[in-house]
Amino acid sequence: MKADNTSPFRMARRAAQMNPSVIREILKLTEQPGVISFAGGLPAPETFPVEAMREACARVLRDAPQAALQYAASEGYAPLREWVAADLGRHGLRVDADQVLVTTGSQQGLDLVAKVLIDAGSTVLVEAPTYLGALQAFAPMEPRLVGVAGDGEGPRIDAMAAAARAADARFFYLLPNFQNPTGRSMGEARRAELVAQAEAIGLPLLEDNPYGELWFDDPPPTGLAARNPDGVIYLGSFSKVLAPGLRLGYVVAPRAIAGKLLQAKQAADLHTPGFNQRVVHEVIRDGFLDRHVPTIRARYKAQRDAMLAALDRHMPPGVRWNKPAGGMFLWVELPAALDATRLLPRAVERGVAFVPGAPFFAEGPQANTLRLSYVTANAAQIETGIAALGAVVRVALEDVA
Amino acid sequence: MKADNTSPFRMARRAAQMNPSVIREILKLTEQPGVISFAGGLPAPETFPVEAMREACARVLRDAPQAALQYAASEGYAPLREWVAADLGRHGLRVDADQVLVTTGSQQGLDLVAKVLIDAGSTVLVEAPTYLGALQAFAPMEPRLVGVAGDGEGPRIDAMAAAARAADARFFYLLPNFQNPTGRSMGEARRAELVAQAEAIGLPLLEDNPYGELWFDDPPPTGLAARNPDGVIYLGSFSKVLAPGLRLGYVVAPRAIAGKLLQAKQAADLHTPGFNQRVVHEVIRDGFLDRHVPTIRARYKAQRDAMLAALDRHMPPGVRWNKPAGGMFLWVELPAALDATRLLPRAVERGVAFVPGAPFFAEGPQANTLRLSYVTANAAQIETGIAALGAVVRVALEDVA
Repeated sequence: MKADNTSPFRMARRAAQMNPSVIREILKLTEQPGVISFAGGLPAPETFPVEAMREACARVLRDAPQAALQYAASEGYAPLREWVAADLGRHGLRVDADQVLVTTGSQQGLDLVAKVLIDAGSTVLVEAPTYLGALQAFAPMEPRLVGVAGDGEGPRIDAMAAAARAADARFFYLLPNFQNPTGRSMGEARRAELVAQAEAIGLPLLEDNPYGELWFDDPPPTGLAARNPDGVIYLGSFSKVLAPGLRLGYVVAPRAIAGKLLQAKQAADLHTPGFNQRVVHEVIRDGFLDRHVPTIRARYKAQRDAMLAALDRHMPPGVRWNKPAGGMFLWVELPAALDATRLLPRAVERGVAFVPGAPFFAEGPQANTLRLSYVTANAAQIETGIAALGAVVRVALEDVA
Repeated sequence: MKADNTSPFRMARRAAQMNPSVIREILKLTEQPGVISFAGGLPAPETFPVEAMREACARVLRDAPQAALQYAASEGYAPLREWVAADLGRHGLRVDADQVLVTTGSQQGLDLVAKVLIDAGSTVLVEAPTYLGALQAFAPMEPRLVGVAGDGEGPRIDAMAAAARAADARFFYLLPNFQNPTGRSMGEARRAELVAQAEAIGLPLLEDNPYGELWFDDPPPTGLAARNPDGVIYLGSFSKVLAPGLRLGYVVAPRAIAGKLLQAKQAADLHTPGFNQRVVHEVIRDGFLDRHVPTIRARYKAQRDAMLAALDRHMPPGVRWNKPAGGMFLWVELPAALDATRLLPRAVERGVAFVPGAPFFAEGPQANTLRLSYVTANAAQIETGIAALGAVVRVALEDVA
């Protein structure tokens, strides 16, 4: 593919699979002043531990400035890897620190896994719907993406098995806890059955867990990797419990492929900024997250409740939504006659934004769905924004009636 | 490819192209206490601007903490992009800030370019020898790498043209200034001829310039992108003028492919840490580098001189080396009968380390070459280390005599 008629550059075939993020384009639309946005997946900035960061930066630059600013090991900063291994152990996933690979956000974990596991034409199973950024990370390696249908408890086991049988899938990517975009969480029975069935049919799993700590009433059941460490790659992140602007995540992989992920990491960016790794380790080393994360949970739970109450008040009959037990998002199903993508400009006109559900589907998009984030806007904005959204939906329903 | 007999994971074909870095393995060997290392490409940590970093971190966390810690644009922090565009303009490369894509080190620029431009089997031209990290970044996209022979002035134009004619090359990757690993720099005539010839035959160039500011007596001639902006992708870095642990680089591409690079960037890690971008911008915004970089130049020049003098004193006849006009490395050719890889363990036994030249060749490695870095060890260590290396070479020459 020629870049254009006058350029000497020709693009690789995979470049055709790269596309601007729909969400990114929507975010531009919604960044107009006066628009209340439920669109972005932006953690509430009030939760960022600015004072702890300030102290940690000062300490790192006082105690180990040269090491923090020098090239460093591709695997990551050893004390941080030890912290992660210990923390995962508390959640039932027993790993050695040398299995933890620090990444530039967990998004990079998706890129590395895609490079190491996906050939052009390989089948990869994803939830229907799933995290848009994962679809984007996988796409350049040219997989055939197959969506696995689910219900409120997560992907259906029979759908997974059928999809895996129909094609020799490289892995099944899933977010068991407070999924993006739906906010749904897999129950204990579904997890146990899914992991057992995947192991039985030899289907590797890729478990993405950015939201697991953001539970509102009870911690979620044990994760997937903890149930079968040899068959699951695990992705973790500090973006939702500390701050996303540090770009700090990690991948834990079975030893059989950890070495290749490390080589891919080294080729991709040599290493994740050592300064960031040391600062985050300095912030969290003494149990900071045990004190800090409960404050995020309380805030997000209150905002979820505000949004649920506002939806109850303002949505016309026929609109359905779930009640997430944690995380940042809830999922709305409009009456089948409505197309959320076509509603969006009208919503923005009335001062409220969301993300249509369609882009989150690898195939067979459900046009009548949309994602709402309840963590960025405050309770008053949630009330105002949902009232406006309810009005938009009412008008649209009248139009199609 | 099965990961192993018991694992359900199967690797992508490209994973076979990923290998542990030879340099990385050597660095482990040379990290023994008491070994003077000329092996790593580590900037002198004494040059890291710790005090400026401390102040910049404090200011960013005082003035814009929430923005610095939040998700940010994939393109990078606008004021930093504007700074880069202005700085490149001072060097003759006129670009708009919106053509600057901030990357997680310039290594990531190599990864993004590889993804966007290399199909499996595509021919890519590289200098013989060239930067090992580029070979690693390109390898997963499965190119056919062709080394272009050169001389002390850089790649030979006839060799480039012949290689480009023999295969429809996607691009020619080169480091015109104080190249890694050789330290050589292209002169004005060679640059002008190379860019004109590449444009004539429709061969895109990928110009990597991490060392350009580290000149000792005179600035290098105008770069390649400045001579033909539509036919050259340019990679820059803050690693050698500030500190590598921040992982901050940038890519400037013709508009025809800049959009695809941005999409690849977004899929790879969403964005480079915003905190790091703001801190670096805070450090450099008021002309800091104009005062700081001359101190690095003076230090490295003195250390180059110390190494040249020590080589003169301690190397037996038949050993040749160049006199780099900038950068971090010089290149040694041993008598043809010697193999630098086989010399390395004996050198480490005597307390000195280097990197054999062979891994820097995409094809046809010259076994009798080696790379020496003069920037990490101090003058006294350089004298001791080169004396030890000279002794090792003498003994080896006696062995083959």
